[in-house]
Amino acid sequence: MEKVKIIFQPSGRRGEVKKGISIIEASRQLGVDIEALCGEKKVCGKCKVRIEEGRFEKFGIVSSPANVSPWQEEEEKFINEAQKKEGYRLGCCARLEGDALVFVPEESRAGKQVVSKAAREIHIEHNPAVRLYYVEMTPPAFDDPTGDFERLTEALEAAHGLSGLVMDFHALRALPNTLREGKWKVTVSVWMDREIIRVRPGKTENAFGIAIDIGTTTVAGYFCNLSTMEVLDTQSLMNPQCKYGEDVMSRITYHMMNPGGLERMSNDIIEGLNTIMRQAVASTHPPRKKVKKKDDGETAEEWVEVPEEGKEYLRLATEDIEDVTIVCNTAMHHILLQLDPEHVGLAPFPPVIHQGLDLKGRDLGLDMNRGAYVHVLPNEAGFVGADNVGVLIAEEPYKGEEIQLIIDIGTNGELVLGNKDKLISSSCATGPALEGAQLTFGMRAAPGAIERIKIDPKTHEVDYKVIGRDSWKSYSKPEEMKTKGICGSGILDVLAELYRAGVVLKSGRFNPRQKSDRYRKNPDNNQPEFVIAWAEETSIGKDVVIAQKDIRQIQLAKGALYCGCKLMMRRMNVEKLDKVKIAGAFGTHVDREKALIMGLFPDCEIERIVSVGNAAGDGARAALLNREKRAEANWVARNVEYIELTVEEDFQQQFMEAMQIPHMKDEFPHLKGIVPDDILNQ
Amino acid sequence: MEKVKIIFQPSGRRGEVKKGISIIEASRQLGVDIEALCGEKKVCGKCKVRIEEGRFEKFGIVSSPANVSPWQEEEEKFINEAQKKEGYRLGCCARLEGDALVFVPEESRAGKQVVSKAAREIHIEHNPAVRLYYVEMTPPAFDDPTGDFERLTEALEAAHGLSGLVMDFHALRALPNTLREGKWKVTVSVWMDREIIRVRPGKTENAFGIAIDIGTTTVAGYFCNLSTMEVLDTQSLMNPQCKYGEDVMSRITYHMMNPGGLERMSNDIIEGLNTIMRQAVASTHPPRKKVKKKDDGETAEEWVEVPEEGKEYLRLATEDIEDVTIVCNTAMHHILLQLDPEHVGLAPFPPVIHQGLDLKGRDLGLDMNRGAYVHVLPNEAGFVGADNVGVLIAEEPYKGEEIQLIIDIGTNGELVLGNKDKLISSSCATGPALEGAQLTFGMRAAPGAIERIKIDPKTHEVDYKVIGRDSWKSYSKPEEMKTKGICGSGILDVLAELYRAGVVLKSGRFNPRQKSDRYRKNPDNNQPEFVIAWAEETSIGKDVVIAQKDIRQIQLAKGALYCGCKLMMRRMNVEKLDKVKIAGAFGTHVDREKALIMGLFPDCEIERIVSVGNAAGDGARAALLNREKRAEANWVARNVEYIELTVEEDFQQQFMEAMQIPHMKDEFPHLKGIVPDDILNQ
Repeated sequence: MEKVKIIFQPSGRRGEVKKGISIIEASRQLGVDIEALCGEKKVCGKCKVRIEEGRFEKFGIVSSPANVSPWQEEEEKFINEAQKKEGYRLGCCARLEGDALVFVPEESRAGKQVVSKAAREIHIEHNPAVRLYYVEMTPPAFDDPTGDFERLTEALEAAHGLSGLVMDFHALRALPNTLREGKWKVTVSVWMDREIIRVRPGKTENAFGIAIDIGTTTVAGYFCNLSTMEVLDTQSLMNPQCKYGEDVMSRITYHMMNPGGLERMSNDIIEGLNTIMRQAVASTHPPRKKVKKKDDGETAEEWVEVPEEGKEYLRLATEDIEDVTIVCNTAMHHILLQLDPEHVGLAPFPPVIHQGLDLKGRDLGLDMNRGAYVHVLPNEAGFVGADNVGVLIAEEPYKGEEIQLIIDIGTNGELVLGNKDKLISSSCATGPALEGAQLTFGMRAAPGAIERIKIDPKTHEVDYKVIGRDSWKSYSKPEEMKTKGICGSGILDVLAELYRAGVVLKSGRFNPRQKSDRYRKNPDNNQPEFVIAWAEETSIGKDVVIAQKDIRQIQLAKGALYCGCKLMMRRMNVEKLDKVKIAGAFGTHVDREKALIMGLFPDCEIERIVSVGNAAGDGARAALLNREKRAEANWVARNVEYIELTVEEDFQQQFMEAMQIPHMKDEFPHLKGIVPDDILNQ
Repeated sequence: MEKVKIIFQPSGRRGEVKKGISIIEASRQLGVDIEALCGEKKVCGKCKVRIEEGRFEKFGIVSSPANVSPWQEEEEKFINEAQKKEGYRLGCCARLEGDALVFVPEESRAGKQVVSKAAREIHIEHNPAVRLYYVEMTPPAFDDPTGDFERLTEALEAAHGLSGLVMDFHALRALPNTLREGKWKVTVSVWMDREIIRVRPGKTENAFGIAIDIGTTTVAGYFCNLSTMEVLDTQSLMNPQCKYGEDVMSRITYHMMNPGGLERMSNDIIEGLNTIMRQAVASTHPPRKKVKKKDDGETAEEWVEVPEEGKEYLRLATEDIEDVTIVCNTAMHHILLQLDPEHVGLAPFPPVIHQGLDLKGRDLGLDMNRGAYVHVLPNEAGFVGADNVGVLIAEEPYKGEEIQLIIDIGTNGELVLGNKDKLISSSCATGPALEGAQLTFGMRAAPGAIERIKIDPKTHEVDYKVIGRDSWKSYSKPEEMKTKGICGSGILDVLAELYRAGVVLKSGRFNPRQKSDRYRKNPDNNQPEFVIAWAEETSIGKDVVIAQKDIRQIQLAKGALYCGCKLMMRRMNVEKLDKVKIAGAFGTHVDREKALIMGLFPDCEIERIVSVGNAAGDGARAALLNREKRAEANWVARNVEYIELTVEEDFQQQFMEAMQIPHMKDEFPHLKGIVPDDILNQ
């Protein structure tokens, strides 16, 4: 196998890799983070890198743009002639044919995502799947040589009326010594009144579990005391699968193109879940710090615990995690369980399974109690997964009279509409634009990302705020901003603000009458664009702009969502929404007014538009603490009618209309007084 | 870690081992088989070896008896002064303190056991736990995007009335591609009408399973077609745990003395089961032979299949094994499943579990279908295990009026007595004497072992037959016999023959009136002994004898069994046995007449004494092919009353009486005419 040497700058990471692999693949092997939003489908253009020309004695290599595979047509779109001459290439297109020194520009570096998914107060009835039972037994004797398991189950039946119990194999292995250690007094963890999963000596009051929400981008875990329902800790991290592509389709593609890819992605998310579980139990120990200690005259360092005064610590281990519930979309569900996700990505998108699954955590390789189960909530359909089921069992729209519209915007938009009489669901291809992909300066919610924008209607001057800095631009020196791009919430703002300020028209085109030099034509492609941040305010050395094509992308996304809502309302014969609930991190950041202005969803009283936070995670928590919610989830998953909207006769026309901003003034009575009349009447 | 060099002769095996380990442990590490019947409890004396004195240039070592740990008191019993001077030691006592060349005498070498456990014709109703169902489905469409699992289970419900099915995780992983490969026509393996464990494309008629009997010494597997009930193949091998000790107590001791010992013994038996499974499926392929082939002028060897003409081969793989049932005694059961066997070996001997267990084969590390289950039959009590339950469900004494006595003689004697009204069971400590251990020349049923003996009542001349040679001694030249010792069936013969010929009295003592020079006093210990084979007929260069103390050992064993039977009959108020069934390999070899002569069990019509072969294995097969037998086994295991005989008030007296040969003449009316009256009336 022939090898080549590669060095990445500015990180300095280097190593030998197999000849012929792509620069993106090499970056992955060497642990260099390069943005690859589209999953190497050569359509996002985010993985731009520069191949240096020259002899690098220090590393013993000669690098040249000629050392990588020939230029591809797909690169034209993202790399102009000048850049091409400098050695710029897309990391997904260029394959290593010889040694190379590769420079990764700031804009192409994947930053660490800022994740915020806190647990919300919701009402949950206490009925966990794992319950504790304390029993006392008499020891075996010549006239009573009954075996340990039968002795235990007879005692459980006598004291607690439990019958027909079976026992996990690993719990059984520990049984004889636990019974004797506890002097025939033990606490038994019973799953679903059916199976003994753990036996501990003596009397114990507490058991613990984790509710997990695996998002395409972020993973959150809520560590709960199953006995008191208290949330002890919340942990979150980026989905480690992001390196295989930003959206579900990219990951499905990765599986289809790479033998072993499914297992690799599955192992990565399992390792992520293990990290969450280990961090969750670590949070029950005192913090530690390193101290110098003198030993025989030698100075050494060691870690010591620094408990807070008066604080009790539970000091749990991962074997104390006795139950786990998981919600995620159908593709994440399939990848997690190594169920082939190929068909979920192909019409008519059938999942491998709808029904909720009970699996032994050990079968998945999870670092938790060996006898314990994981419950994965059911999928509604190929594009409406267990995460949506989680939202539904948390929000319970099927229990009231009100017509609710529940929107969960991720890379895909998931919509549920209805009340106790009927619920329908659908998904719409919002695409990744609302999360930053495919926009010239779109990025994830990481430091340097613009999250709030205001445009002065008179001067068209822009003020904005970036993640990682509390002060708005107008209160900062330009060089303090270190702006890098625009993330989801900033993207929502930008279109509404551009429209409210009159910079763009309701068609989405730039208004020919402009007031500032922020509006210009891009010299490379002659496309109109509007500068949000000047180069001096950025860390990437160039102006951050919104181009005409970016606005089109946003319009496509919001149009898909709006059109989806309208078609569902028509199906249900619903004229007016009683409530709009926005779930997900997106919901937490959305400015309700601006969402109405840009026509993200049909009109509703502003006070009745609410963000329900991470409702999917809340659903997972409800299922963790109340086993009835699992049955309810299975019922919901099979009783929400999934509707494929793209097959509606007038779908295309509805979609085109929905792309306008806002769709029609009389459809938005609640916008009156918010948007100037002259603009509303455009 | 300090190391020493060790060389075993005559095998020539050598290597470096950790200083301080015993010679037995070193032999195990280097793959040298030394007999260790007692499991290193220093009581059997079978592991005698000689440490050589001298400088062995060829191996670069200096060996000396001084290089091993000091002489121990326990060795006195087995090694006389002369042998001690030659450097003889017990391998279990002598620990390596320096380099050593160790000679293993022929008599200490463990031979390969001759195993014979064929499947018997018994009536079994066809109702296997794993059944096949063929279904056809319509593929998913836009108006029917139901998931694969739900599509399959709906079809199974419609076509076969199966409802509420769940699916094994690994089977689910294979589902989407199997459905599409089979063009939505598949054959489904369903376990207990409850769980889908496998899906195969197209229509298939056959499924396969193995019934396994794990004996303390031998393991047998019956490979069956679950659809036709045909036994396709029988496989057997020695229990690989024999190296940890011959009987169950030795292995329990090994576990208690060696950290990790339980896991090691478990892994060894699992590997043994995997060997059986791989050989079973290999038997469905044509035999192969090595042929020379010419390739570009070079001659190479390769394996080619040599199918028998006209024969069809199933060509199965281990994934085609979709069900396994296992019977074994309680200690083997616990060791297999890594359940602590310590308490099974301590009064009042409670097992960890009685109830039958359903486990995924993969959880045990078995090389079979990944979704499939293993069913381990239930234990009756600490000393009456699942193997006895197997015997019961095969023989069904609880279904008839006849009072049956079922005897299963292994290292332990297991007894069941009763009929449809009541069944009681017990175990008696026959000890390993009947299997050859603890006798001066006792050995396993391996080549060179005496298996049949006749003694002429007039001359006291001895004729015998050894395993591995068809001709009796009287038809052979002495040097052709290559006798090594006496195995189980020979031991039964010897006492009956010695008694019938008048060589020993009913008390078990040698008759003072002897007719041949075979009777003598041993010069070393002045104990009387009787020569069975002269040195010239043996491969060990010395006379094979039965000593007075050997006869005592046999009496202890047969007395325990006889006394057990009598006490059980007293408990049940039974005067007369309608039938005696002898199970196990022992039963196959037992000479009914001689068994009655030596008083192995109470009197019964000779025609009504039957050998039922490996009834335990038959029970495993019945449970494999008829799931009702599993429920029946659980019922039997809890409804046979286990009786501890040693706590009976007059146990000691009964036991002493039972040691006589035969117990009392009027108790054996069926012996009249078989044994000369003058002997019977002694």
